[in-house]
Amino acid sequence: MDEPGGITQNFLRHGRGVHLRGAGSGPVARGARARAAEASLARSGAALAYGQVEGPPGLRHALARRITAREHVAATAADVLVTGGNSQGLEQVLTVFSEPGDVVLVESPTYNLALGIVRDHPVDIVGVPLDADGLDVAALEARLEEFASAGRRARLLYTIPTYHNPTGICLSARDASASSSWPGVTTDRGRGRRLPRARVRGLRAAVALAMDREAPVIRLGSFSKTLAPGLRVGWANARADLLQRLAGMGMLESGGGVSYFARTWSSRCWPRRATTSTWSCCAGSTRGAATRSPPRCKSASPPGAASPSGGRLLRVARTPGGGDAAALLPLAEARGVSFAPGARFCLEGGELRLRLAFSLYGEDALREGARRLAAALAAMPA
Amino acid sequence: MDEPGGITQNFLRHGRGVHLRGAGSGPVARGARARAAEASLARSGAALAYGQVEGPPGLRHALARRITAREHVAATAADVLVTGGNSQGLEQVLTVFSEPGDVVLVESPTYNLALGIVRDHPVDIVGVPLDADGLDVAALEARLEEFASAGRRARLLYTIPTYHNPTGICLSARDASASSSWPGVTTDRGRGRRLPRARVRGLRAAVALAMDREAPVIRLGSFSKTLAPGLRVGWANARADLLQRLAGMGMLESGGGVSYFARTWSSRCWPRRATTSTWSCCAGSTRGAATRSPPRCKSASPPGAASPSGGRLLRVARTPGGGDAAALLPLAEARGVSFAPGARFCLEGGELRLRLAFSLYGEDALREGARRLAAALAAMPA
Repeated sequence: MDEPGGITQNFLRHGRGVHLRGAGSGPVARGARARAAEASLARSGAALAYGQVEGPPGLRHALARRITAREHVAATAADVLVTGGNSQGLEQVLTVFSEPGDVVLVESPTYNLALGIVRDHPVDIVGVPLDADGLDVAALEARLEEFASAGRRARLLYTIPTYHNPTGICLSARDASASSSWPGVTTDRGRGRRLPRARVRGLRAAVALAMDREAPVIRLGSFSKTLAPGLRVGWANARADLLQRLAGMGMLESGGGVSYFARTWSSRCWPRRATTSTWSCCAGSTRGAATRSPPRCKSASPPGAASPSGGRLLRVARTPGGGDAAALLPLAEARGVSFAPGARFCLEGGELRLRLAFSLYGEDALREGARRLAAALAAMPA
Repeated sequence: MDEPGGITQNFLRHGRGVHLRGAGSGPVARGARARAAEASLARSGAALAYGQVEGPPGLRHALARRITAREHVAATAADVLVTGGNSQGLEQVLTVFSEPGDVVLVESPTYNLALGIVRDHPVDIVGVPLDADGLDVAALEARLEEFASAGRRARLLYTIPTYHNPTGICLSARDASASSSWPGVTTDRGRGRRLPRARVRGLRAAVALAMDREAPVIRLGSFSKTLAPGLRVGWANARADLLQRLAGMGMLESGGGVSYFARTWSSRCWPRRATTSTWSCCAGSTRGAATRSPPRCKSASPPGAASPSGGRLLRVARTPGGGDAAALLPLAEARGVSFAPGARFCLEGGELRLRLAFSLYGEDALREGARRLAAALAAMPA
């Protein structure tokens, strides 16, 4: 068993003088977890039986209320589909909405695990760069023009508009909508294409945008960071007809595809758990980490980017002197500190960058981590 | 929420004078379920954290021991991958092992939900008929010859060698191996192709067979019928290198893809639960149902097929006088009895057939169900 959050290659190893903040117990207290499990199992075993493909109605209603209230996107339960987490949600979107040879656009860098999921499908993956405000909308427009000229079709765009992983950037307010409808901006150029924009508040989830004529957006969210990653439960929020296509996937027909027990449990633990505390907490750590960056390591966020205001990952740092982050990793790990090399997040390049996952640590631990990473950098061959 | 087993279109509706055998509680008693949940949650929340992609080591070891002892297939934990149930397992096999345009062979009729899963992939689905002993091996050979002549490749065969759904047939002992190695028969014809054969005892699971040069078999199993369908937990049993390819799927990289809590819970409730009792129980019901078939409905199993010796579904019956089963369904449901129309299980045809899911009922309920179905048949237009 990994230590909590092991998949994210946390900045510091547990033990060796480093204490994780709230490690082990997760955001839901042990007593509450057990009570939720007991309650989920109490009703004649319904949580263990076959369930509705779309998810437990109570959880879908609760999610819709939250999305409406917090993300300023009008939603009803019909606009919410419970998924097996963001990874399974993205897998479903690709299976249902892409065809062999389609172009799928991704930000580069982007969430490394999303790249692995897209690569499992017979599609062409094309990168779109970021600028200081997030997705480079002009570059995206140019890519779309290229494909249109070549008679090809960009079917999907996978984008993370807020607290982007790995950079921490939020799509700027310049591109964010003041409207209460879908989080998208209509470009001036023809054919009604819509580009993603985010409500900077609330929308932390990954978004997949179908580049169809009507360009609907499918927003993916997860309980992994706010409730428990081992549940593998998340949701998709989109127009009901799109969700019905996702729900029609063969894999889900056999009683829902996702652990119905885990989904029922989620609906009992949530929304009592306020997620804002997690995020403001992270923002505090970000500032802490930023002020104590290793001396030879500089920020490599796009010029002009603001410090991340939230999220769980420090914005991407850059190794000094052109050193390859992959070569730095064993030196760092020997000193009890870790990171994810940047190349994992990029379609090409990224070797000079590293993603630091900081959110489990207090300021003292981050100071110690910065000291260790500086020692690892000092040990790199010139 | 459906009634338990609703996805299988049970023969009789709960209520209306019909009592389900063990309905609601499922095979695991409520107290044991709750204790397993508490124990799963007790260890510092490990069951809620990210987990190993391959599944909890304890569950994989237990499954390997059982497969070795009961199915006479030598297995270690490395040969077992925990999946999100058979549906997700088959989805994973198709995503990893098929390419656009590949031929995927299925028995026709076959498990209707498997057809939906295969249809989500850009492959050509080709049916192979059954004979009295299960998969028609000669017909399969002929199909493979056709594809070889046309320069095409049959990539996968999806087959259910024992207690076939919907027919209940077990692949005959003639084709079953006496060997203790993989459940496959080598044909006499060139290129080392291997065809599936089953241990009639033990192997109840669906099997996907890759038609590669080395023709490995991936055997899929599930806890849905023996523990709880709402868990969505199952397993794949195959050569370790094949399972590593499945485990390398992008969707699973984020901590395992399947609810780690559900998997941990499964490992605590199982293998204390003896599954044989479920199956012998079903075999008893089959005999009960067979002796009380509706008077105008005759068995449509292939000529010479033995009565099913187990499984949870009556072998396929046939409507009299060429009546379409889909037209019979509303008449039956109005009388509180149901079935799955045969066309759902077939690539083509099957309109005259119906699958009766009987295993939740005792003999009295089955007698009542036969009476109601006979009334529905009598009400059909000539």
